[in-house]
Amino acid sequence: MPTRGRRPLGSPDARGAVLGAARELFAELGFERTTMRAVAARADVDAALIYHYFRDKEGLLAAAIELPVDPAALFAGVASDPSRAGEELVRRVVTLWDSYPEIRERMIAVLRTGLSHDHAAQLVRDLLSSNLLAALGEVLAGDRRELRTGLIGSQIGGLMLARYVLRVPGAADATPEELVRAVGPVIQHYLTGPFAPADTSATSG
Amino acid sequence: MPTRGRRPLGSPDARGAVLGAARELFAELGFERTTMRAVAARADVDAALIYHYFRDKEGLLAAAIELPVDPAALFAGVASDPSRAGEELVRRVVTLWDSYPEIRERMIAVLRTGLSHDHAAQLVRDLLSSNLLAALGEVLAGDRRELRTGLIGSQIGGLMLARYVLRVPGAADATPEELVRAVGPVIQHYLTGPFAPADTSATSG
Repeated sequence: MPTRGRRPLGSPDARGAVLGAARELFAELGFERTTMRAVAARADVDAALIYHYFRDKEGLLAAAIELPVDPAALFAGVASDPSRAGEELVRRVVTLWDSYPEIRERMIAVLRTGLSHDHAAQLVRDLLSSNLLAALGEVLAGDRRELRTGLIGSQIGGLMLARYVLRVPGAADATPEELVRAVGPVIQHYLTGPFAPADTSATSG
Repeated sequence: MPTRGRRPLGSPDARGAVLGAARELFAELGFERTTMRAVAARADVDAALIYHYFRDKEGLLAAAIELPVDPAALFAGVASDPSRAGEELVRRVVTLWDSYPEIRERMIAVLRTGLSHDHAAQLVRDLLSSNLLAALGEVLAGDRRELRTGLIGSQIGGLMLARYVLRVPGAADATPEELVRAVGPVIQHYLTGPFAPADTSATSG
């Protein structure tokens, strides 16, 4: 039922166009100020089609912030050498970000949306913890697992923002292997290092 | 020259009201969509007063994203024991954030503004590098100093977002001393650790 040249229901690109428009508007305006009408206008579809596909704005948000890669594939075998899991994690995410700007921009948009709206923050938290735990659960030390995965997420997310959004010197122009060498041991520390009392060296051993 | 009950030029709180309104609107809308008219309306002043104080929107942005604490005071003596500088840095920033929600929210607003606009990103980069270098320059290893400060910034910023904005489990509910023990060695590694080839352990020693 196309009207005025809009993309019709069932058009193969209509769903993708709605998701693309929603991602842009959530990132620009935040969740509260983004209206279904504005998403429909930007995607060039009838608003009814958005309700048809996604039911409501929460459903649209959940679909919009899905990661653009399958985390299971991205992280498969990352811990096959447990003593190198930190390096391997950094190598894979930085290589992915550097090699696929569209995927990187989608992941940045997911993070930005999470930073601007509580509902999205919950989805980002779930995404982070379930995927990191699934990928790294077997190599993760037994104690303080929530703190460990939270800190890994904080460093990986902080690195993404510093390298690609704020373009902080050093972080922005380092090669992937320089980041593997500098940040890999940090992730390894969060994975398996002792979170020792402050009067011993927590990075040795 | 008050009109309709607005705050007059020279009113002691007019400048602060303008800055507060600007911070809110930059964070909510980003730099491009924030208008001087909207700032004036929210601050309850004449727009002419904003031009009087800040000249233009760039001047308003620069004033709005000034840090709410004096970094020189915050970091004074942080490296007095060079082997503990990483722990001490984490202790001071987390204690500050936990103890002074208003300062924390201002710092989060600065970071968010930097993430949403290139002009603000430049200011945040300058703020970060000059203050971290001034505080930690003497303890920082001689090689890769830009990369080291950039990575410190990425971890401190990522921790702030994970703990207070995304409220990631583990990162959000850890005590300051737990974070000192877990993240302190990471900052110490970025300060002085060898960014060694991947086939040696970069965290030991």
